[in-house]
Amino acid sequence: MADDDIRPREVAVPLPAVTDVGVYFIGRIHTPWASRADCPRAGDAENGPECTIVVAERWRQALTGLEGQAELQVLYWMNRARRDLVIQAPRQNGTILGTFALRSPVRPNPIASSVVAVLGIDGATLRVRGLDCIDGTPLIDLKPHRRAVAVQPGPDELSAQQPVPCRTKDDEPG
Amino acid sequence: MADDDIRPREVAVPLPAVTDVGVYFIGRIHTPWASRADCPRAGDAENGPECTIVVAERWRQALTGLEGQAELQVLYWMNRARRDLVIQAPRQNGTILGTFALRSPVRPNPIASSVVAVLGIDGATLRVRGLDCIDGTPLIDLKPHRRAVAVQPGPDELSAQQPVPCRTKDDEPG
Repeated sequence: MADDDIRPREVAVPLPAVTDVGVYFIGRIHTPWASRADCPRAGDAENGPECTIVVAERWRQALTGLEGQAELQVLYWMNRARRDLVIQAPRQNGTILGTFALRSPVRPNPIASSVVAVLGIDGATLRVRGLDCIDGTPLIDLKPHRRAVAVQPGPDELSAQQPVPCRTKDDEPG
Repeated sequence: MADDDIRPREVAVPLPAVTDVGVYFIGRIHTPWASRADCPRAGDAENGPECTIVVAERWRQALTGLEGQAELQVLYWMNRARRDLVIQAPRQNGTILGTFALRSPVRPNPIASSVVAVLGIDGATLRVRGLDCIDGTPLIDLKPHRRAVAVQPGPDELSAQQPVPCRTKDDEPG
């Protein structure tokens, strides 16, 4: 099935005439997968294959201080996905679901978020594990991973966690 | 300090002449905070104040099937942040860090990602807990939350977890 096909019971809406703001592609992601059919359903940061993230030269300095981060949140743009479906019919289970109830690439803004394990950083190239996207996918952001607050780690988990610098100038008093 | 100020030792780069792709604002987020100085340093999905997410009418059907989701990942656009800093100097600790080593709103693509607890859904309005942004912030995506694979919850945590459509094997007991 081509990426642009629509299935029975799926619902599309007219897209707005213009977008509201622009995104810069700040690098490229390289994976073993040439098509969406080849991609796994979710990345596996423990056992998935090694992938690389190449940050564009303009943004290279923004990697300063990432050494020692065991995990990163990666945002990327799923540039082959249609954007106009509000109801989707994932083939595997026969039900229909709203787009916001799915992590499908097909959504108004096809932005994916994955948490990856960092294996190494060499210049502007990061070796990581945990991605699930097509080779050549545009990178749009890298962030320290902030763990979900609902998880209450026990003592064993706490000791394994890395400190995450989440501070921003805007968060400061005054 | 105004949002656009640059501090000593911070480094800006020239932005590309054009963006690569466009984002639709698909709704608005309403919070108790009128300015960035008022916002908390991070959202608190357990004890933070109730906030609302209002999805634009065009995308309302995409909420189908979200009932019963205890948590959602919310992506939003931090539209007041400058985008050209690669090195930042958060005031509180005197060090400098690359933008990708921070979760600061100041970044090439000012996209924030938060995991929220869902308190209720009424039409196109979601009541949630766990946001940290300014009132009126543009919404760009909602997704089921996929827990980080590196978290190995103990027995107490497992009982509190909700099923997520895109489960990873690490979320599952055993």
